[in-house]
Amino acid sequence: MRKVFQEELQKVHEDLVEISRLVATALDRAVESLTNADVELAQEVIAADARIDFLQTALDEKAIEILALQGPVASDLRIIVGSLRMSASLERMGDLARHVAQLTRLRYPEKATPESLAGVFARMAELDKEIISEVTALLEDHDLTRTSRIQAANAELDELHAGIFRAIADQTWTGSPSVAVDVALLSRYFERFADHGVSVSRKVSYLVTGEWDGDNTSN
Amino acid sequence: MRKVFQEELQKVHEDLVEISRLVATALDRAVESLTNADVELAQEVIAADARIDFLQTALDEKAIEILALQGPVASDLRIIVGSLRMSASLERMGDLARHVAQLTRLRYPEKATPESLAGVFARMAELDKEIISEVTALLEDHDLTRTSRIQAANAELDELHAGIFRAIADQTWTGSPSVAVDVALLSRYFERFADHGVSVSRKVSYLVTGEWDGDNTSN
Repeated sequence: MRKVFQEELQKVHEDLVEISRLVATALDRAVESLTNADVELAQEVIAADARIDFLQTALDEKAIEILALQGPVASDLRIIVGSLRMSASLERMGDLARHVAQLTRLRYPEKATPESLAGVFARMAELDKEIISEVTALLEDHDLTRTSRIQAANAELDELHAGIFRAIADQTWTGSPSVAVDVALLSRYFERFADHGVSVSRKVSYLVTGEWDGDNTSN
Repeated sequence: MRKVFQEELQKVHEDLVEISRLVATALDRAVESLTNADVELAQEVIAADARIDFLQTALDEKAIEILALQGPVASDLRIIVGSLRMSASLERMGDLARHVAQLTRLRYPEKATPESLAGVFARMAELDKEIISEVTALLEDHDLTRTSRIQAANAELDELHAGIFRAIADQTWTGSPSVAVDVALLSRYFERFADHGVSVSRKVSYLVTGEWDGDNTSN
């Protein structure tokens, strides 16, 4: 019985890692579609999000089944409940990558971001890629030194996000109101993506150390 | 033992209802602060959100304790896991009410919304108020006829949200890019609030009927 249980826990864990990898791929491709105004690639990202949603639902069902059949306690219980929450965060990160692709599609054949901000968005995308890459690795190896890198990347993203809002409010902003809205939403998608990444990393830390350092992702 | 368990389940349920009521109050006050550019009221909404966050954490801890000590199965297990998810949605709705208050504070002493859109935002606020009111009542009485009203309100909100984005993109839009961004974000807060309300109502339906009709809240 115990062996079956450990195998089931391992399966939930592997599913989480797989979802995290799919989110990384979705982000990569969403960013590429945004950068090149590649509507076909954007379409693929949008379609592929259903797979992430499906895997999240399947993981949740499995976790609930384990709760029902095994009645886990203590750390095993925390792992299961933690997995339910991490899968929700990862699924939301997949949604945010999809939102980037949807904006790309909406503005096609135009680019969704003005040239003047291409550098800032490239950096934001790079930071998000680093975050999801570290999150995936953290889920696999539980190396908690990764969490500080994730938090540092998130802090830089918050700065860039605030800078974009300042740029829009500045007198020198020459874009249309509609472009301003696109830019603001896109910036928010990148920033929220990072927040959810931090949230997942905090849950892993908690499961590894048993200590909770709080969670500011819902801001 | 069984009696204690039922009492604990009941307590989780009452906590959910209390959180829902606090969210309703937060929304009411956030909307009032927005309408009147009342920065003190906005400040109160922002401060009060910590209470919602606290109650959500407490509810989650209690739910996990029940899972550990009682090992519930079947419908009781689904209620506990469902409560964890509903509390997360309600907490997020509280955040969104806080975001409305934060925008009010940021733009004070100006109003955060242009006069030309005051009517649309008033209607959006009214629909969200109806949704959280129906959600609270649904949690209490499990009257599933409420879900269709919640979904109808959400559908109207989606229309209004799309209309606001069209207005910003229109040639006749005279607001600044910064106002356009405020309007777009505000509209998104109201729209997301409704999505989470629908999500909670779907979970109640599922717990009552055992049938899942899908969930589109993550769009």
